[in-house]
Amino acid sequence: MKVLFAAGDPKPERWTKPIKTLLPEADVYVWDPNGPVVDADYAIVWQPPTALFEREKNLKAIFNLGAGVDGLMALPVLPPTLTVVRLEDAGMSAQMAEYVLHQLVEASRDMEAYREQQRQGTWKIHRPIRRNDWPVGIMGLGQIGQRVASTLAALDYPVNAWARGKHDLDGVHTYAGTGELGPFLSTTRVLVNTLPLTEATRDLIDYPLLSQLLPDAVVINVGRGESLVEEDLLRALDEGQVARASLDVFREEPLPADHPFWRHRGVTVTPHISARTLRESTIEQITGKIRAHAAGRPISGVVDRARGY
Amino acid sequence: MKVLFAAGDPKPERWTKPIKTLLPEADVYVWDPNGPVVDADYAIVWQPPTALFEREKNLKAIFNLGAGVDGLMALPVLPPTLTVVRLEDAGMSAQMAEYVLHQLVEASRDMEAYREQQRQGTWKIHRPIRRNDWPVGIMGLGQIGQRVASTLAALDYPVNAWARGKHDLDGVHTYAGTGELGPFLSTTRVLVNTLPLTEATRDLIDYPLLSQLLPDAVVINVGRGESLVEEDLLRALDEGQVARASLDVFREEPLPADHPFWRHRGVTVTPHISARTLRESTIEQITGKIRAHAAGRPISGVVDRARGY
Repeated sequence: MKVLFAAGDPKPERWTKPIKTLLPEADVYVWDPNGPVVDADYAIVWQPPTALFEREKNLKAIFNLGAGVDGLMALPVLPPTLTVVRLEDAGMSAQMAEYVLHQLVEASRDMEAYREQQRQGTWKIHRPIRRNDWPVGIMGLGQIGQRVASTLAALDYPVNAWARGKHDLDGVHTYAGTGELGPFLSTTRVLVNTLPLTEATRDLIDYPLLSQLLPDAVVINVGRGESLVEEDLLRALDEGQVARASLDVFREEPLPADHPFWRHRGVTVTPHISARTLRESTIEQITGKIRAHAAGRPISGVVDRARGY
Repeated sequence: MKVLFAAGDPKPERWTKPIKTLLPEADVYVWDPNGPVVDADYAIVWQPPTALFEREKNLKAIFNLGAGVDGLMALPVLPPTLTVVRLEDAGMSAQMAEYVLHQLVEASRDMEAYREQQRQGTWKIHRPIRRNDWPVGIMGLGQIGQRVASTLAALDYPVNAWARGKHDLDGVHTYAGTGELGPFLSTTRVLVNTLPLTEATRDLIDYPLLSQLLPDAVVINVGRGESLVEEDLLRALDEGQVARASLDVFREEPLPADHPFWRHRGVTVTPHISARTLRESTIEQITGKIRAHAAGRPISGVVDRARGY
């Protein structure tokens, strides 16, 4: 079996060495734009070059080094029937859940005010919050959305969740489909986006949507930048409908130096770090799936090309 | 039945009105230093005046408006056989768990660096953390310690916990008693104190204890200020054994203006806000217990006078 690593890491041996250890039956190659055809069975990719698909014609499946496959799906050279597998969790959902909780606490308990008080040497206790005043609404109930929802519910926040299809989740009030988006928004103050980017979710979070949230809303975007209409969020912030936003993903990354988000009083910017894939667990997951696929066993995380994720 | 409210709130009707609603069988009085003897059956107290115990001689039980009863226990006028009931949870454990997680994320993911990058307009991704590098050790396994432990364990942090007696808690490695304190400390990087203040826990967290933690330790104190020897923590910080500390409680509160904690680079100071009692759930809990006690039913939260909590 031949496995081709094509993820543009300047130190590919950090990946290929453990891959060989966990998958000794494989010959492992690193993508070389000037090299010969490998005739690989499997490729492990991150933002792969177009030439990969022109040269490697016998791929049985490719494994994306991330949960979001919108960039990959948009490649015109991607063979339409090639099996594409996205990364599942690999340590990401716990990171994302703690990031969301951290940003929620920043907002609900105004931790910046306490940091400022420390700088001033001021001892002042603010009113405690009532959790019922901070209902959270999670958009998307994939592995990440579910983990975020259960984490916040376990800490006694009222949690709503909205997804394309119907889900059941302990302690979470779920809403499904376009028809239930309105009721979901009208009972949500803290909107958390974990949706994948598809044609259905592009530009979904716009001014009319934001206007349906409860007053003093908080927006936390850990999904994809393109799901949020950035100028609409700025308008909602400036009009006071949205009180603050914690943004980890953007339409253009890195966020351009002159983007108003950097200096907006109500916006927290982080550089797409809410969840990082962890090499060890990623390699474990992918080598396990390669072995299963080669043996003809079913694997999870295969992208539904019609659905887009 | 007569219930006396003696908690020094300038607006006592915020308490007495809902108490009357939930406990219509009671006559509810507010402590008046110049008033007559009420001959109360029950008192609800917070830092009660000495005169209360000199004047009210027929109290069947007193209910403290907080989980920590060390201040109350230290009062020489407290009748030695009077039933003292501490507040249990009342929304505090969830607040405390989210506070600890927030401070842990501040440390483990260096959120201040990202805030500084935003002020500078810099997009820079730091290395992801490995949870195995951040083993947490919780001191104390009361309701609050247990909630903190289970919250962090659910987010995949390795969690140790140490308490006086043996406990069993899913996903948590527990240690018991003085004999197991050493092994607990030597596998702990993030030390979280939730212990009650007793003679056994006063000054417990000192330089020798801090020296047994893993390198680059983090100390989070949400228990009692007197359990921590403050100058020993400063020494451990200055020597680099402890990398940072998040302190919500202090030996003297408010923290004196000239205290070095205010301006220490490695110290986060918050003004005893990690968990605030919530009036509604507090009143519900206490009125429920008064009714049960009056009917001769057992109640939880009764302080063991020998143990001190």
